[in-house]
Amino acid sequence: MSEVPDTQRTSPTDPPPASGAWFEHMPSGDRQFFALSPQRAYVLEGGGEIVAPQIAYETWGTLDAAAGNAVLVCHALTGDAHAHGDSGPGQPTPGWWNDFIGPGRPLDTDRYFVVCANVLGGCQGTSGPASIDPTSGRRWGGDFPIVTVRDVVRSQRALARHLGIQRWLAVVGGSMGGMQALEWAVSYPNRCGSLVIIASTAAASAQQIAWSQVGRQAILDDPAYQGGHYYDAPLGEGPHRGLANARRIAMIHYRSGEEFDRRFDRNSNDPIEPFRLEHRFDIESYLDYQAQKIQSRFDANTYLILNKMMDLHDVGRGRGGVEQALKRITCPSIFMSVRTDFLYPRSQQIRIVDALRGSVPVEHVDVDSDNGHDGFLTEPEQTGEPMGDFIGKIAKGSIA
Amino acid sequence: MSEVPDTQRTSPTDPPPASGAWFEHMPSGDRQFFALSPQRAYVLEGGGEIVAPQIAYETWGTLDAAAGNAVLVCHALTGDAHAHGDSGPGQPTPGWWNDFIGPGRPLDTDRYFVVCANVLGGCQGTSGPASIDPTSGRRWGGDFPIVTVRDVVRSQRALARHLGIQRWLAVVGGSMGGMQALEWAVSYPNRCGSLVIIASTAAASAQQIAWSQVGRQAILDDPAYQGGHYYDAPLGEGPHRGLANARRIAMIHYRSGEEFDRRFDRNSNDPIEPFRLEHRFDIESYLDYQAQKIQSRFDANTYLILNKMMDLHDVGRGRGGVEQALKRITCPSIFMSVRTDFLYPRSQQIRIVDALRGSVPVEHVDVDSDNGHDGFLTEPEQTGEPMGDFIGKIAKGSIA
Repeated sequence: MSEVPDTQRTSPTDPPPASGAWFEHMPSGDRQFFALSPQRAYVLEGGGEIVAPQIAYETWGTLDAAAGNAVLVCHALTGDAHAHGDSGPGQPTPGWWNDFIGPGRPLDTDRYFVVCANVLGGCQGTSGPASIDPTSGRRWGGDFPIVTVRDVVRSQRALARHLGIQRWLAVVGGSMGGMQALEWAVSYPNRCGSLVIIASTAAASAQQIAWSQVGRQAILDDPAYQGGHYYDAPLGEGPHRGLANARRIAMIHYRSGEEFDRRFDRNSNDPIEPFRLEHRFDIESYLDYQAQKIQSRFDANTYLILNKMMDLHDVGRGRGGVEQALKRITCPSIFMSVRTDFLYPRSQQIRIVDALRGSVPVEHVDVDSDNGHDGFLTEPEQTGEPMGDFIGKIAKGSIA
Repeated sequence: MSEVPDTQRTSPTDPPPASGAWFEHMPSGDRQFFALSPQRAYVLEGGGEIVAPQIAYETWGTLDAAAGNAVLVCHALTGDAHAHGDSGPGQPTPGWWNDFIGPGRPLDTDRYFVVCANVLGGCQGTSGPASIDPTSGRRWGGDFPIVTVRDVVRSQRALARHLGIQRWLAVVGGSMGGMQALEWAVSYPNRCGSLVIIASTAAASAQQIAWSQVGRQAILDDPAYQGGHYYDAPLGEGPHRGLANARRIAMIHYRSGEEFDRRFDRNSNDPIEPFRLEHRFDIESYLDYQAQKIQSRFDANTYLILNKMMDLHDVGRGRGGVEQALKRITCPSIFMSVRTDFLYPRSQQIRIVDALRGSVPVEHVDVDSDNGHDGFLTEPEQTGEPMGDFIGKIAKGSIA
C-alpha cells in the first residue's frame, strides 16, 4: 500500500502533499459510501474494469414516502460530493453550491432530498486514480481506465436504486455537471423528471478539447508526474507545477476578460519598475494563488481523466448524432447561459433548446454576469431563482 | 563562444536544435544589419544595457529622392524582419505578410519603400537572448535585459535615421506590431505620417497578461530551460516541451472557436475507440503540429522577453494615462478589428479611435473573419485593401 500523508494540509505555506485527493485513512467528513459493484468488476463503456469501486456521496433533506422529491446535483470538473456544508476534517473546502442548497434556498432541503456524488475517476472518495486497485494492491495512478460521462451516469443510476429513488424529480448541473444531467435524460428518460442545465453542451467543441489538451499537457510535461505514479512522493514533490499551470490556464477561460479588467486591470502590488521578468501584475498573483490553492484538494491524475471524459462527451455518439439523441428526452427542461461565458458559449445551450422545442416544455434563461463560465457557480439569484421556480412547478405538476 | 548547430533543421523529423534562433554563423538570407550603438552600450528604458547591439532588417522597393515614400512594418510576437520573400538558407519561413507586400499589393513596392526590422530581444538577427554579450563572451540567455515597446521604437528611430528617413509615410502593424506603431505616433509624432493598426491595444489588459503569463510559465517550468542557458544543449534537448505548450496555448487564443468548429469540429483521424488518454482529436494534432513547427524558428528566451514586453505595454505609463498619451498623436490613423478576436477585442481598438476622434482624421474597419486574432495576418482583402487605399490617400495628401 502506498504511503500517503494522512492529514490534509492545514497551512497554505506548508509544502503540498503529492496529491490533494482524499485518502482512505483520512476522516470521512460528511461522505457516505456506496459499494457500486461489490460482486464483480465494474465494466466501463470503454472496456476498462474497476474492481470493488465505491461512490462517495452526500445527501441533504429527507426523501419523502413516495421517493418523489429527490434532486440529483451533478458536480463540475474540480467539484465533488460536498455541494453543501462547511469545511472540516477530511473536507478541505466548504460546499461548492452552498448558496443554492439548504432550507429556503433554490434547492430547498425542507422540501427536497438533494443528492450529490463524486464522479468515477474523481479524487474525493469515489474510486479514481488515487484509489487502491485491489487487483494490484497499488494505487491506480496513470493506469486508471478511461471513464465516460455515460459511465458516471450509469453509476449514479445504481446509487439512485440503492437510495430507493426510481425517478429524480430533477437532475441539475453546470458545465461537466450539465453533461451528466443531459446524459441522464438521454440514457434514462423514464428516470428523469426534469433537467436544469447551466453553461453546458451536448458535445465538447474543438476549442473546449483544445483547452483541455493544454491543461493535460502541462501535467504530462511535469517530470514529477512520473507516469501518474507520484503518490509516494514526499511533501512538495508531486506534479505541482503541472497542475498549477493547468489551473492557471483553466481559470483564464473559466472567468472573463471583462471581470479581470474590473477586478485587476493593470494593477500591480508588486512594483512594476525596475522592469524584471519575475514581476507579477495582480492578475498573475491571483492565478498563482488559484494554482496553489487547488493543490490541497485535487489530484493531477483526476485532472487528466475528467478532462478526457469531457472531451469524449458527445450525447450523439453511437446514437445517430446529437439531434437524434436529444429526441430521447421526454422531460421538461430549463437551460441557462452566461453572457460572458466564452468556454461554453450560449450557442451550445441554444442548440439543445432548439432540438427540444416542440417535443418537451423547454425554457432558456440568459444570465447577465461578468464571471464567464464560472457564472454557473456564482450567481445564486440569477440562476438559483429560476431553478427553484422551475423545480417547484415540476414538484406541483404544473409543468408536465 | 557557445556551440550551436550551424544549419537550420531541414526535416521536421530531425530533433530540433535547442533554439530556433538565427545564429551568427548561419547564412544571412535577406537580412541587412545595422549597428545600433557602435560607440557605447545601448541603454534601455528599464536601465539594462546592451553592448554593440545590432538590428536585422529587410527592405523592399526604392526610397524616393525626398525620402517620402517609406513605410515601416512592425512585426508581431513570433514574426521577424522577413515580412516579404521566400524561405531559403538562413530563413526558415516565407515572408509572414507576403500577401500584403509586393508590386501591386497593398504595400506596393513599386510605390513605397517598405522596411521591416526584427525587434530588440528577438531571435532572427537583431540582438536578443540568443546573441553573444560581448562583455561576457557568452550568449545572454536568461540574463538578457527587459525590453519595452518604447525601446523597440527608439531603436527603429535610429534605423530610420540610418536609412535617411526623417518621417515615415506610414507605420503599420498588427498585434504587438500595432503596439509599436501606436508608440511611434506617441513618442515621435513628427516622424509619423500615418498609422495603420490592426487588432492591437493601447495597453495590455489583465486577460492578455494572464495568457502571456501561462505561456511564460510553461517555459519556465521546463527543466530543460536551465535559467535560459540552454544554447549548448544537444539537438532535441532544449526547452521544447515548454515552448511547445506555450505555443499550443497561444494558438487557441490566436484563432477562434468558430474557426476550430469549422475546420476540426470533433473530427478524429486517430480512432476514438478504444478510449485512451493518448488519443488525439484533429484539433489536438493541429496544435501539436504548430507546437512542433515553432521550434525551428523561435527561441524560448525571446518568447519570455517579448511576452513581458507586451504585458508592460502601456502608452500611458509616465504620461498621465492612456487618453492623455493619445493626445500626442497628430497623424491620420486607421484601426481594424477582427470580429472573432477575443484576445484583442474590438473594444480595445475603439478606445483608441474614440480618443483620437475630433483631433486627427481616424477611420475604423470591422473585419469579418473567423480567424480570431490571427485575422490580422490572414485577410489580405479585408485588411489589405483599406490599408492600401488609406496609405494611397496619405501619399497623395488627400488626408491630412
